[in-house]
Amino acid sequence: MSYQIAVLSGDGIGPEVMAEARKVLSAVEARFGLDINYTEYDIGGIAIDNHGCPLPDATLKGCEAADAILFGSVGGPKWEHLPPNDQPERGALLPLRGHFELFCNLRPAKLHDGLEHMSPLRSDISARGFDVLCVRELTGGIYFGKPKGRQGEGEDEEAFDTMRYSRREISRIARIAFEAARGRKNKVTSVDKANVLACSVLWRQVVEEVAKDFPDVTLEHIYIDNATMQLLRRPDEFDVMLCSNLFGDILSDEIAMLTGSMGLLSSASMNSTGFGLFEPAGGSAPDIAGKGIANPVAQILSAALMLRHSLKQEDAANAIERAVTKALASGYLTGELLSADKRSEAKSTAQMGDFITQAI
Amino acid sequence: MSYQIAVLSGDGIGPEVMAEARKVLSAVEARFGLDINYTEYDIGGIAIDNHGCPLPDATLKGCEAADAILFGSVGGPKWEHLPPNDQPERGALLPLRGHFELFCNLRPAKLHDGLEHMSPLRSDISARGFDVLCVRELTGGIYFGKPKGRQGEGEDEEAFDTMRYSRREISRIARIAFEAARGRKNKVTSVDKANVLACSVLWRQVVEEVAKDFPDVTLEHIYIDNATMQLLRRPDEFDVMLCSNLFGDILSDEIAMLTGSMGLLSSASMNSTGFGLFEPAGGSAPDIAGKGIANPVAQILSAALMLRHSLKQEDAANAIERAVTKALASGYLTGELLSADKRSEAKSTAQMGDFITQAI
Ligand SMILES: CC(C)[C@H](C(=O)O)[C@@H](O)C(=O)O
Ligand SMILES: CC(C)[C@H](C(=O)O)[C@@H](O)C(=O)O
Repeated sequence: MSYQIAVLSGDGIGPEVMAEARKVLSAVEARFGLDINYTEYDIGGIAIDNHGCPLPDATLKGCEAADAILFGSVGGPKWEHLPPNDQPERGALLPLRGHFELFCNLRPAKLHDGLEHMSPLRSDISARGFDVLCVRELTGGIYFGKPKGRQGEGEDEEAFDTMRYSRREISRIARIAFEAARGRKNKVTSVDKANVLACSVLWRQVVEEVAKDFPDVTLEHIYIDNATMQLLRRPDEFDVMLCSNLFGDILSDEIAMLTGSMGLLSSASMNSTGFGLFEPAGGSAPDIAGKGIANPVAQILSAALMLRHSLKQEDAANAIERAVTKALASGYLTGELLSADKRSEAKSTAQMGDFITQAI
Repeated sequence: MSYQIAVLSGDGIGPEVMAEARKVLSAVEARFGLDINYTEYDIGGIAIDNHGCPLPDATLKGCEAADAILFGSVGGPKWEHLPPNDQPERGALLPLRGHFELFCNLRPAKLHDGLEHMSPLRSDISARGFDVLCVRELTGGIYFGKPKGRQGEGEDEEAFDTMRYSRREISRIARIAFEAARGRKNKVTSVDKANVLACSVLWRQVVEEVAKDFPDVTLEHIYIDNATMQLLRRPDEFDVMLCSNLFGDILSDEIAMLTGSMGLLSSASMNSTGFGLFEPAGGSAPDIAGKGIANPVAQILSAALMLRHSLKQEDAANAIERAVTKALASGYLTGELLSADKRSEAKSTAQMGDFITQAI
C-alpha cells in the first residue's frame, strides 16, 4: 500500500517536533513495509510570511491530493496584530475543518502512570487517575452557523453569532461517541446546556435516540457548567464525553490541563471518508521554539492516530504507542515533565524522538 | 430608613438556610437601627406545586414592590421530568433576570484561610490562595438573543440560538468590572473567544475603549478555553474576570469548585437602579434538605451583599462578613468542610446561624 501525506509543520515548535515524528514514521514504514510519501506545505504564520495568507491555495490543493494531513501547530506573537480572521489559528484551522468537513474531533487525555504529580489536581484525586476521550463536533454549532456579523450604529451597534445544529449533525457525532465507548468503559456523558439553549434540547433528544442502538452503553447528560466542576472533583468517573463544538473546545482544554502534560496529547479531526487532520493538542509554544527542548510525543502520537484512523494501519499505530509508553515508563522525559530537582535528566526533543524510533 | 424585601426561599435546603439568614438580619437590624420588612413568596418547585408555575404572578408583583429579592434556591428531582422551559431553575431564574434587567452578576470566590485543603487543586497551588471576582453579564448573549427555536423536518430538523451583544450592553458591564477592580488588585481579565465569535470581537473592542477611562487598571484578554486551563495552574494571578453570560456561567462554576467550599459562596444580580437578587451559589441540594446540616453561610453572605448593594448599608454588610470570618476562623464549620476524622465536630445549620448572629 502506498500513501500520500500532506505535512503542515507550521510555526513555533511545529517544525522541530515534526522532524521527530518523521523519524518515528520512517521506522514503522520499514518495520511494517509501508510506502508513505510526504509533501511539505506552508501553513499559518510562515504561510502569511511567504504567501500572504495563512492557508495558501497550493496547501489546500496538496491536502486534497493526500490521504491525510499531519499538522504541527500555528501562531505566534509575530502575527497577533492581524485582524482575527487573518490570524494563523483562525485562518488556517477553521477553513481546513470546514473545507474537508472534519466533523469528528477525538481528543483523548489520560493521566500517565508516574506522571500524576504533573496534574494540578490534589494528590488524592490525581492518585485515582483518569482516562477521558472527548468527542467534539467540529464543523457545526456557533463556529460555523450563519448569520454571523455586525449591524447598527453607535451604542446600538451589535454583533451576532448563530448556534445551529441539525439532527443529522448531532446523530453522526453521537454515533461515534457511542462506538468509541464500546472499546472503552461503555459510558457516554453528553454535555449540553439544555436549560438554556434550543440547540441543547435537540442535542439531548437526538443523543437519547441514538443511545437506543447502543443498549450496552450507559448514557448520562450533564450541563456544561456542572461538567467543568465535576471534572475537578471526580475525573475518574468519566469515560467518553460527547460535546458540541464550543463546549468541546472548552472542556477538552480543561481536561488536557488536568493531565498536566499537554506535550503528550494529540487530537484527530476526521470526516466520513476517513480523511483526517492529526495534530498535537498544545500550541506552537513560541517561547521555547528552536531550543530543542519541546516535547515531540504529542506530534508522534498524532502520527499514530493518523496511521490508525486514516491509513487503517492499526499495527503500526500500536507500535508507536507502545514505544511511547516504553519511553515514559523508563522515565525518559523532556524537561517540562520533570520536577526542578530532576531537570538535569531532561531529554532533548531529538533524544526523545531517537529513543522512540529505536523502540519501534 | 425602612426597606421591603421579597423573600423567595424556594426548594431543597432553601427554607432552612434562609431561616438562618433571617436570624442574622434581625441582629444587624437591631444593631444598626434598620427597619426591614420581609414578605415570603413561593418560587420554583414549591410554586409549581402550589400554583402550577415556577414564577407566579403574585411572586413577580411582590418582587416589583420590594427594594431587593433575597433568593434561596430552586429545583429538585421532583420537577426534573418537566419540559426545560417549565422547570424551576429555568422557569424562575431566567424570567426574573430578564424582567428586572439584572444585567450585572457579581460572583466573588476566594480560598478561605484554613480551608485550602478543601480545594481540589494540588496543595502547592492552593497554598498560594486566590481571590477572584467573576463579573458576568446576565441579560444578554445567547441566553436571551432572538431568534431561538426549531425548524425543518426529519434529518434536516434543526435548532438555533442567537448570541447577540450591543456596544451598550458590553460597555455597561465592562465599566462595573473596572470599577470593582479599583477596590481590589486593579486587574481585569476579559474572557472571550475572539478567534471564533463576532460577538467576542466586538466585546474585545468595547472593553478596550472602556479601559481608556481606567488607566490605573491593567487589562488583559484571554480566550475562554485558555481561561479554564490557566485557572487550574495559576488561579492566584487573576483578580476580576469579566465574562459574557455563557462564559461567565461556565467559568464562575469552575472557580466556585476550585474553592472547594460552595456553601460559602454567594452571588448578586443587579440592574442599573441598584435593585437586585441575592442568592447562594450552590444549588438546592435536595439530598441533604431537611436534615439540618446544610451550610447557611452562602445564604447569610447573600444577605450581606443585599445590604451593601441594594440597601446601601455598608456597615451592616461588613458586620455580617466579619461575623462569618470569625466563625470560620474559629473552626466553626458545617460537616462538608471538615475532613472525615473531624466530622464529629460539625456544626448544624442552626448552630452556624446562631454563632454568626451572636457575633454581630
Ligand atoms: C484556534 C481555535 C480556533 C481552535 C478552536 O476554537 O477550535 C482551538 O482552540 C482548538 O481547540 O482547536
Ligand atoms: C439555572 C441556570 C439557568 C443558571 C444559568 O445558566 O445562568 C445557573 O446555572 C446559574 O449560573 O445561575
